[in-house]
Amino acid sequence: MKSSDASAADELPDARDHRVVILAARPEIDGGRYPVKRVLGEPLVVEADVVSDGHDVVRAVLLDRAPGASRWRETELVPAGDDVWRASLELASLGRHRYTVMAWVDAFASWRRGLERKFAANVDVSLELLEGALVIDAAYRRHRDPVLSDAARALRGSEPIPDRVARATSPALADAMAAASDRALATRYRHELQVQVERPIAATSAWYEMFPRSTREGGGHGSLRDAEARLGYVAELGFDVLYLPPIHPIGTAFRKGPDNAPDAGPDDPGSPWAIGNREGGHTSVHPALGSLADFDHFLDAARGHGLEVALDIAFQASPEHPWVQAHPTWFKTRADGTIQYAENPPKKYQDVYPFDFESADWKALWRALRDVFVFWCQRGVRVFRVDNPHTKPIAFWEWCLGDLQARYPDTVFLAEAFTRRKVMYALAKSGFSQSYTYFTWRTTKHELETYLTELVCTEVAEFFRPNLWPTTPDIFPEHLVHGGRAAFVQRLILAGTLSASYGIYGPSYELGENEPRPGAEELARNEKYQVRTWDLDRPGSLRHVIARLNRIRRAHPALSHNRSLRFHPTDNELVICYSKSAPVPGGRDDVVLVVVNLDPHHRHGAWLTLDLAALGLREDRTFQVHDLLGDARYSWQGRHNFVELVPDQMPAHIFDVRPFARSENQFEYFL
Amino acid sequence: MKSSDASAADELPDARDHRVVILAARPEIDGGRYPVKRVLGEPLVVEADVVSDGHDVVRAVLLDRAPGASRWRETELVPAGDDVWRASLELASLGRHRYTVMAWVDAFASWRRGLERKFAANVDVSLELLEGALVIDAAYRRHRDPVLSDAARALRGSEPIPDRVARATSPALADAMAAASDRALATRYRHELQVQVERPIAATSAWYEMFPRSTREGGGHGSLRDAEARLGYVAELGFDVLYLPPIHPIGTAFRKGPDNAPDAGPDDPGSPWAIGNREGGHTSVHPALGSLADFDHFLDAARGHGLEVALDIAFQASPEHPWVQAHPTWFKTRADGTIQYAENPPKKYQDVYPFDFESADWKALWRALRDVFVFWCQRGVRVFRVDNPHTKPIAFWEWCLGDLQARYPDTVFLAEAFTRRKVMYALAKSGFSQSYTYFTWRTTKHELETYLTELVCTEVAEFFRPNLWPTTPDIFPEHLVHGGRAAFVQRLILAGTLSASYGIYGPSYELGENEPRPGAEELARNEKYQVRTWDLDRPGSLRHVIARLNRIRRAHPALSHNRSLRFHPTDNELVICYSKSAPVPGGRDDVVLVVVNLDPHHRHGAWLTLDLAALGLREDRTFQVHDLLGDARYSWQGRHNFVELVPDQMPAHIFDVRPFARSENQFEYFL
Repeated sequence: MKSSDASAADELPDARDHRVVILAARPEIDGGRYPVKRVLGEPLVVEADVVSDGHDVVRAVLLDRAPGASRWRETELVPAGDDVWRASLELASLGRHRYTVMAWVDAFASWRRGLERKFAANVDVSLELLEGALVIDAAYRRHRDPVLSDAARALRGSEPIPDRVARATSPALADAMAAASDRALATRYRHELQVQVERPIAATSAWYEMFPRSTREGGGHGSLRDAEARLGYVAELGFDVLYLPPIHPIGTAFRKGPDNAPDAGPDDPGSPWAIGNREGGHTSVHPALGSLADFDHFLDAARGHGLEVALDIAFQASPEHPWVQAHPTWFKTRADGTIQYAENPPKKYQDVYPFDFESADWKALWRALRDVFVFWCQRGVRVFRVDNPHTKPIAFWEWCLGDLQARYPDTVFLAEAFTRRKVMYALAKSGFSQSYTYFTWRTTKHELETYLTELVCTEVAEFFRPNLWPTTPDIFPEHLVHGGRAAFVQRLILAGTLSASYGIYGPSYELGENEPRPGAEELARNEKYQVRTWDLDRPGSLRHVIARLNRIRRAHPALSHNRSLRFHPTDNELVICYSKSAPVPGGRDDVVLVVVNLDPHHRHGAWLTLDLAALGLREDRTFQVHDLLGDARYSWQGRHNFVELVPDQMPAHIFDVRPFARSENQFEYFL
Repeated sequence: MKSSDASAADELPDARDHRVVILAARPEIDGGRYPVKRVLGEPLVVEADVVSDGHDVVRAVLLDRAPGASRWRETELVPAGDDVWRASLELASLGRHRYTVMAWVDAFASWRRGLERKFAANVDVSLELLEGALVIDAAYRRHRDPVLSDAARALRGSEPIPDRVARATSPALADAMAAASDRALATRYRHELQVQVERPIAATSAWYEMFPRSTREGGGHGSLRDAEARLGYVAELGFDVLYLPPIHPIGTAFRKGPDNAPDAGPDDPGSPWAIGNREGGHTSVHPALGSLADFDHFLDAARGHGLEVALDIAFQASPEHPWVQAHPTWFKTRADGTIQYAENPPKKYQDVYPFDFESADWKALWRALRDVFVFWCQRGVRVFRVDNPHTKPIAFWEWCLGDLQARYPDTVFLAEAFTRRKVMYALAKSGFSQSYTYFTWRTTKHELETYLTELVCTEVAEFFRPNLWPTTPDIFPEHLVHGGRAAFVQRLILAGTLSASYGIYGPSYELGENEPRPGAEELARNEKYQVRTWDLDRPGSLRHVIARLNRIRRAHPALSHNRSLRFHPTDNELVICYSKSAPVPGGRDDVVLVVVNLDPHHRHGAWLTLDLAALGLREDRTFQVHDLLGDARYSWQGRHNFVELVPDQMPAHIFDVRPFARSENQFEYFL
C-alpha cells in the first residue's frame, strides 16, 4: 500500500530542534492558556522533562519575565532524576509573570567529562586536548573572553599533559564556557507559561460578611457611620476582610418584602442585589447608608483596624437603574419592546434585568462593567466578592479581571459561583483569586475528605483557592438547624482549618441564629430583605471561639497553606483527622493536627492512625500535641493514638505537634 | 499600589470567544505536538470539557480530517455528565489524522427549551413565538431553506398557539435549524490534535527473531535460501513477524571473534551490526546470504507463509562502509584527521563509526538514512526493527518516521531502545509503533504489576506500545540460567499474554539454550559472532507450547489489546493473576484470565481475589473457566477461587472465562 499523499514529506525540521526535547513543563494549566497562582513570597517550583539522545551533558535553564520586563531572567535547572529538571523561582513582584524552559547539549561539558574519564583511565588524551581547544575557539568567536583564548592556547601548548588537563577542567574555564554557551541549537519549550502573583491575602484570608444597614444600635436602618462603630468588634474577632453586600441604591419596582414576600411594604428596604434606582447605580452609595465621602471614611477606618473592605459586585440592574434609560442596548429587548427580566422558566424575576453580554453594543457594556471595578479601585477598594459570575460569559471575566489585575495587581476577587465544578474551575482559571465552594453542604467525613482532596491535593490547587463558608445569606444548611451551638463550632473550625481562606456571615453566625424560613434553605427574617438589629453580647455567642481560631490561624503558618493537607484515618466515621504543615525559615516545620467530632449531639472517642512522615515524626519517639483550643497537652507515641471529644464542651482539637528532642546532656524536651 | 503597566489592558477579546470554553480535549499528547496511536478498526473516543455560563443549550462537534483531506468531517459530541462531551470516531484510513473540537451556544435550542417549559406551565407564549421567528429569520439569512421561512411565517401567523408551538418544536424545524446553525460565535479548541492510524499489526504482533546465517541444515554459513526452508517452521509456530538481524555486508576491520573475542580468525563471520564493507552498505545484501533477488524471493516466500519480514536498521558503519569514503563529512573527524569511532570512555569500539547527526552536512545524511528505509520499502518490506534509536537525535526520528509514514502509511517500526523511560517514551511519541521494554528484567509479581500498569493503564498507552521479549541476542537474563524449562515457559506466557505484542529470539529460546557467556548477560556461543546450527527437533523443545500460545492469542481478541489489563490480587507472592477483555461484535465480551506461577522450582497454590466486574461476572452466579493450555474446565463462583500450578507440568493457566446463563426452560449452561 503506497500513499497517494507523500507530499508533506522531505521537509527537514528546523535545526534548532536537534538534540534536546523538553516536555511537560509544569505547573502548566491548559498548555499555558491560564496562569497558575502564587502569592508574593511563595516560591514557584518549576519542573520539566528534559530528554535527549545519547549521553552528552545537557544544560537547562528556566526563563522568567516579570510583568513589564522586556528581558528573560535565567535560572539554572538542576536534574532531579528520571529526566526531571527542577528550579525554584522567587517572584518578587505582583502581576502576571511568564516562564518557560530552554535546554541544549553542552558540547564543552560533554568533552570535558570524556577527557576526565580517559585521563583517569590513563588513556593518552593529547588528541582530546586539541579537540577541546577547537570547542573553546568556537566559544571565543561567540564571546571574546581572554580566559577562553588563553585556555585554547594552553591546551594546544607544550605543558605536560596533566597540567593541560588541569587547565581544561578548571572551574574558571567552566564558568567562562558557560557564559559563552552555544544556544544556536537550544530547544525552547513550546509553551510560554504564566503565573499570576497576588498578595498573600489572595491565598490566606478570614472573611466576615456583614450588612451595614443592620448595624444601628437600638434599631432602624443603619448607615456606614453605624457600621464604622462595628469595626472594632470585627477586628477583635481577628478577621482580615470585612465584606459588605451591595451598598448601592435599591430598585423599588417589584421590590421584595420580608422573607422574599412578593410585595414590599412602603418601609421595606428591598434586596441590596436589586441594584440601581434614580439615585444611582453600581458606582453610587445608597443614600440611607451615606455618601461616597462616608464610604471613603469607612474605608479609612477599616484600614485603621487592620481590615480590608470587600465590596460585592453584582452585575444586574433593577428596572430603575440609570443604565436602563441611558443604555437600553445593554439589555435584551423583547418583541414587544419591553426589556427582558431574569427568568428560570416558568419562574420570573421581574425586579432584576440581566445585562446582555452578547448585545451589538457589547464592547461598551463590557468596558462599563470593568469601569465599575475601576471606580471602586480608585477609591481604594482592593477586594471584591463577585455575585453569580457563572451567569456571565467566562470570556468576559478573563478579559475584565485580566485588565483589572494589570492596572491594579494588588486586587483580589472572590467568585460567588455555586455551579457545576468545571464551570467553577474555568472561572478560577479566568482570574478569580478565590471561590466559594460546596463545603457548605459537605458534612460527612467521606464527603469532606473527598471534596477537600480534590480541591487542594490535585492540579486544581494550582488555580482554584477555596474559601469555605458555613453559611451565607442565601444558604442556611439543614445540619445547622438542629445541631445547636456545637454544630456551629464544628463547621467554624472545619472551615477555618481545612482551608487557608474561610468566612462567616455574621453576626447571625456567632450568635447561633438557626431558625429557618419554611420552605427555603435560608434563615428566617433574612437580612437580604429586612433590617435586623443584633445583640452582640447575647449569651452563647461564639465570638471568643472565633477570635481564638483566628489567633491560631495567624500564629500558625501551617494553616496559611492548603497543599500540605493530609487526612489521617480514624476508626470512627464521626471523627475526622487531618494535618497541615509549613516550613518556617530557620526553624522546625510548623505542624498542626486537627481532630473534629462531626456529631453535634454525642461524645465520640476515636483511634487515630497518624501518617507520621507527614507530621515529620519518628515512629520510635514520643511527641507532644498541644491543644491550642483548650490548652491541654498530651504525650503521644507512634501512629495509634486516642482522642475523645465532647461536643458540648469543645468538639475539636487543634493540636500544635511538637516533636520530641534529646538535649546534649540527654535531657529530653519538646521542641 | 497602582501598576505602572496598565498598557496591555483594555484590549477586548475576539468575539468568537464569547460563550463556550473548551478545555482538555483528549486524548492529547503534549498539547497535540505528538499523535496518539490507533490501528484501523479501532475507534478513537474523544472527550472534551465543554463549559459555558448560564443554562443555554450548547452544541459541540468533533472535527476530524483524514490524511490528505481538505475538509473537516463533523461528528456530534454528546454530553456525558460533569461537562464532559464525548464522541467516537471510526478511522477508515491509515496515516496521520487530525481532530479538534468546536462548540457554540445554540440560540434556537435554548429558545425552544424555554418555550416548551413556559407552554407546559400554561404561560402565555405569544411573545416567545414572535421572538423565535426572529431567530429563524436570522438562520434563513445564513441558509435559504424554505423550511425556515415557512416556519417563521407560521410562528408569526394566526394559528392557535398550541399549533404554533407544535410547529416551533417539530423535528423537521430542529433539523433545518441545526443545518443552518450560527457558528459565528463558536469556540474552537485551541489545539489541533493528531492520531496516527496504523495497521493492526502495529498493535498486535508475535515476533520471531532468527539469524538467517544459522539456518543451514548440516552446518556452515546459511543463506536466504536456507532461511526460506525455515519459514514453514516459523509459520507453524504461529508468529506474525519474522525478524532478521542486519543482512548487509560485514566489516572486517577490528572484526570481533566468537563471544566478542577482540580478534577474529579468518573464518569468523563477524557481527552483522558492523555494517558495510567494499561489497556494500545498508542497501546491500551480504553475498554469503545471497543477492537482492534472493531477498525478494525470500520476502515472497515469507508472504506465502503469512509472515511479514522485519529488517533490522542499525545506523552505524564499519570503517569499510562505502559512505566512509564517499561521505566523510557524515562522520566526526578527529584533530588528527582520523574518523571518530564509537566509545564509552574509556571503552573503545573501533569496529563501529557512529554517524555525526550534527555534521555540517546533516541534511544530506538525514535524507540518506531515510532513503535506506525507502530502499527496503520499495522492495516490499513494511516492518523495521530499529537498533539503538536512543543514540540518535529524537528529532531525527520524528522527521524520518513521519516522512516514511506519510509515504508508506502501512509501515511499522519497533524501537530497540533500552534506556531511560522518558527517552523511550519520547521515541514512541516521535513515531515508533512499538518498543522493546524492561520486561526482560522484571520478574517479581510486584515488578510486573507496577511496570505493566505504568505501560498499559496510564496515558503512556496512548503512544507507547510495549513489545515484550524474554531474551534477545544481547540479553540472556539470570532467571533463565537456572530456571530450567519451566522458567522459559513462564516468561513466554507472561510475554505473550501481558502484551498484545511480544517476541522470542529463536531457535535458542524454544530449544531452552541457557548456558551464559561468563561475565556477560548473554548466551555462550552467541550468534552475534558465530554461525550456529540448531537441531529443531531436540527433545524438550517448547515449539508446541509456543504454537498453542499463538493459537490462543489469535483466537482471543482479549489478548490483542492491552488497555483492559487488570491485575487481580492473590495471596501468594509467587502467583500472579491478570485478565484482559475485548468486546466482540454481536457477541459476549471475550474475557481471558491468566494465572502464572512465577517460581520455576516449586508447585504453588493461591487464593485469587477476582475483580468480578472487570470479568463481566456477577457475585451470585457460577461461571466456568476453561484452561486453554491444558484444556481442563473448572466451575467457580464468587471472588475467591483457588488454583494450584506445578511448574514441571505447566506453570500457567490461560482461562477462557465463560459466564453462566440460564436458558428459557431454566436449563443452565455456560455461554
